[in-house]
Amino acid sequence: MKLNALNFSGGPGALPESVLEQTRDAIIALPDTGMSVLGMSHRSDWFRAVLDEAEQNLRHLLGVSDDYAVTFLQGGSSLQFAMIPMNFAARAVAPPEYVSTGYWSAKATTEAAKVTERNIIWDGGATGYRSLPDLQALGVAPSAAYLHYVSNETVEGLQFPDCKQGAIAAPLIADMSSDFLSKPICTAAYSMIYAHAQKNLGPAGVTVALIERALLDRIPNGLPAILDFRTHVQHSSNYNTPPVFAIYVLMLVTRWLRDDIGGLHAMQTINERKAQRLYDTLDALGDAVTVHAQPRWRSRMNVAFTFGDSRLDRAFIRVAREQGLTGLEGHRSIGGLRASLYNAVGEAAVERLAAVLTEFSLQRA
Amino acid sequence: MKLNALNFSGGPGALPESVLEQTRDAIIALPDTGMSVLGMSHRSDWFRAVLDEAEQNLRHLLGVSDDYAVTFLQGGSSLQFAMIPMNFAARAVAPPEYVSTGYWSAKATTEAAKVTERNIIWDGGATGYRSLPDLQALGVAPSAAYLHYVSNETVEGLQFPDCKQGAIAAPLIADMSSDFLSKPICTAAYSMIYAHAQKNLGPAGVTVALIERALLDRIPNGLPAILDFRTHVQHSSNYNTPPVFAIYVLMLVTRWLRDDIGGLHAMQTINERKAQRLYDTLDALGDAVTVHAQPRWRSRMNVAFTFGDSRLDRAFIRVAREQGLTGLEGHRSIGGLRASLYNAVGEAAVERLAAVLTEFSLQRA
Repeated sequence: MKLNALNFSGGPGALPESVLEQTRDAIIALPDTGMSVLGMSHRSDWFRAVLDEAEQNLRHLLGVSDDYAVTFLQGGSSLQFAMIPMNFAARAVAPPEYVSTGYWSAKATTEAAKVTERNIIWDGGATGYRSLPDLQALGVAPSAAYLHYVSNETVEGLQFPDCKQGAIAAPLIADMSSDFLSKPICTAAYSMIYAHAQKNLGPAGVTVALIERALLDRIPNGLPAILDFRTHVQHSSNYNTPPVFAIYVLMLVTRWLRDDIGGLHAMQTINERKAQRLYDTLDALGDAVTVHAQPRWRSRMNVAFTFGDSRLDRAFIRVAREQGLTGLEGHRSIGGLRASLYNAVGEAAVERLAAVLTEFSLQRA
Repeated sequence: MKLNALNFSGGPGALPESVLEQTRDAIIALPDTGMSVLGMSHRSDWFRAVLDEAEQNLRHLLGVSDDYAVTFLQGGSSLQFAMIPMNFAARAVAPPEYVSTGYWSAKATTEAAKVTERNIIWDGGATGYRSLPDLQALGVAPSAAYLHYVSNETVEGLQFPDCKQGAIAAPLIADMSSDFLSKPICTAAYSMIYAHAQKNLGPAGVTVALIERALLDRIPNGLPAILDFRTHVQHSSNYNTPPVFAIYVLMLVTRWLRDDIGGLHAMQTINERKAQRLYDTLDALGDAVTVHAQPRWRSRMNVAFTFGDSRLDRAFIRVAREQGLTGLEGHRSIGGLRASLYNAVGEAAVERLAAVLTEFSLQRA
């Protein structure tokens, strides 16, 4: 494999070069402390400032009001699949509603059932997870504990449009792991938003959760402290030793988005161009390729497609790797190919992928 | 603060310089993949090899047989305080027994009560956590779900001797977070050993658990997958995205212990010398300082002491910092001073601390 491979992996994904350079230097000695970032105490003033800046950058980028707590957790989305019903279902009048639109939301739905009664209000499994419902048209009851959905299905490459404030009667909880910070969102439409870092935010090992403070009143007493969201809010994400390094890198990424990119509108413009370039290339190949998602629901972050034949897909992965493009294997659950276009994947990388795709297709035609 | 500050922090602690240098280079591009370690897929062959080597190094260093699974988890010891009773108490004949010998074991005991009935078989709280019991003399019932204890109390600086195989009738579970890999242990005496990384193993964000396979049969069905130890065993610690970077650094640390240090007997010899040097220095200061632990139970990893006056303690912290020694503040629960002598704290650093302590004491006398 060559140096400077272009990384189209579904996650952990690419990170901005300037962030990698600062991180490299911090491994030996942080400029402001003279100590390795890996040996910094989570109780130090330095780390307090890192946590504060990460939180402030997120509030600034997403327009998060003081009605929400910003927390940094461990365990990935998979732990959230258990914690959310443990915290927010027990004291509700009616069970939570789940929308099952792909591999990850189906997993959230399965895990919730181990903790609580829950309703599946829409299920795209029978039709192969190629389309999404209109959330507003689902008629969620106001008494439901919450409505849970996944905003971007990483495996199948499906993406919901942003929700409108007040569109859903019950508290709205979204797993935004694979499109968080890729575009502006109407934060006020949600009661909770969570996202693990390893797509657009930083290295694997930290998960951001924005939680409406009013929702914390619904948490039953008696949960283990580490599984009770109030613990993390009350201790400003420093209850037990947090993943200091991962949060440091996440802070650098949010600073990059704020200062170098210029915010989420600018990021969205770039991401739209990248996705458009790739979908245009695939559409131009006609019957030679099939995009998994129906056109209306195509994700701007994860493009799942296939040459319709696993031998051809494998051949493409081989050719791409020779050209320095990696991470193009589809998820093991559906096979095929997937190009993930997270924030740190540059437009030049997408141009390169488009060229390799077109050339590969012409040679096989 | 100066460059190359000497880090005596209770954790996250110092890491070996050679590990930091390899890690620094890997941030930009791993030699074997040409990609940043932060963008490596957890499903890659590279990461599979990292997980395998980390496991094999641990098995080699500690003499872990195939009767045990080796897992890498998230959430720190605090998540284990909840997971252990969730997994191992529900189907037992009699409740688990807890030994409360300091800040951390008391926390484990409190958290267990949120999940299960449990007995506190010994409690050193009333006497200020200055001594430890003889575990064998406690008469733990064979029908107890397990006996839980903390092998080294990080805050108070107390350390148990290693357990003998067969000494305890019930399954023995030890939180070894702050002395894991600091010396050889009789692994076969334990049914489960766990340790978060940020003392002797690597950066915060990963926790190692060795679990006797026979114990897995006691886990009740229906737990959320992420909270069921069987999930992590069955998926070889790759169920959901693991903290790839933290596990990579942990692997490098175990390789350093194996190749550069030459194993845990050699590490123990160095650690004994370091602790002896510091305790000798403190004892030579006579009434000017008080070591928190009774002599018999003094920890080789964490030395908690005080000049008997918070103004003097603060003055020492200031003087030490001017000399490039950091992390000497005692834990907020007991105040005073604490020097942590984890594996990567070199003998020269301890010599330096001893000299600064003696000089400080002479000047105040």
